[in-house]
Amino acid sequence: MPELFHDTTTAAVFSAAKLNKINLYESHRLFCDVYCLEPGQSQSEHSHTENDKIYHVLTGRCEVSVGDDRRDLNAGELAVAPAGVVHGARNVSSERTTMLVIMAPHPGMKG
Amino acid sequence: MPELFHDTTTAAVFSAAKLNKINLYESHRLFCDVYCLEPGQSQSEHSHTENDKIYHVLTGRCEVSVGDDRRDLNAGELAVAPAGVVHGARNVSSERTTMLVIMAPHPGMKG
Repeated sequence: MPELFHDTTTAAVFSAAKLNKINLYESHRLFCDVYCLEPGQSQSEHSHTENDKIYHVLTGRCEVSVGDDRRDLNAGELAVAPAGVVHGARNVSSERTTMLVIMAPHPGMKG
Repeated sequence: MPELFHDTTTAAVFSAAKLNKINLYESHRLFCDVYCLEPGQSQSEHSHTENDKIYHVLTGRCEVSVGDDRRDLNAGELAVAPAGVVHGARNVSSERTTMLVIMAPHPGMKG
């Protein structure tokens, strides 16, 4: 059994090179990551045919786009990118950002 | 298109009668709720054959059980209940608790 309890306040590990993803849990049903973004780091806009994604800002701020909507989200705010809708995220602030990111089903694991 | 941006810091609505669930988004792939628990309120232990659940404490504290493991989670901590594993939650504190709860796939919607 994988670890089932996690503390998102201590999970973050940042990379100077690019957005860093810390996986907390994954199955074919979903993955749950902490995305760690230094100022200026981003996830380019893309979409998934069969998967919903949630971006939930934990600390800092992050600009998130879903379709034609682009918003600056503060800690506690979240965005949902339904399957087929183009989405992306960019830390346009001067502070580090962490986000809880959940995607279902997992795009890379089969049941 | 449903609303895709939400603020979990203002979404909570509590009920004196029982745990209150505020749905933020749902599809057959997942649901995303804010669970609002007054002191003493709980979700009884149960399991889902085919669905993973995440309990993520947003504010306050909550006792969460997954299988034989029972822990008191503070804001920022989360628990994963994989499909088939008995789980439940109880606000044993004297403060209100809010949790982001995500389940995938949605147990009540078919694709």
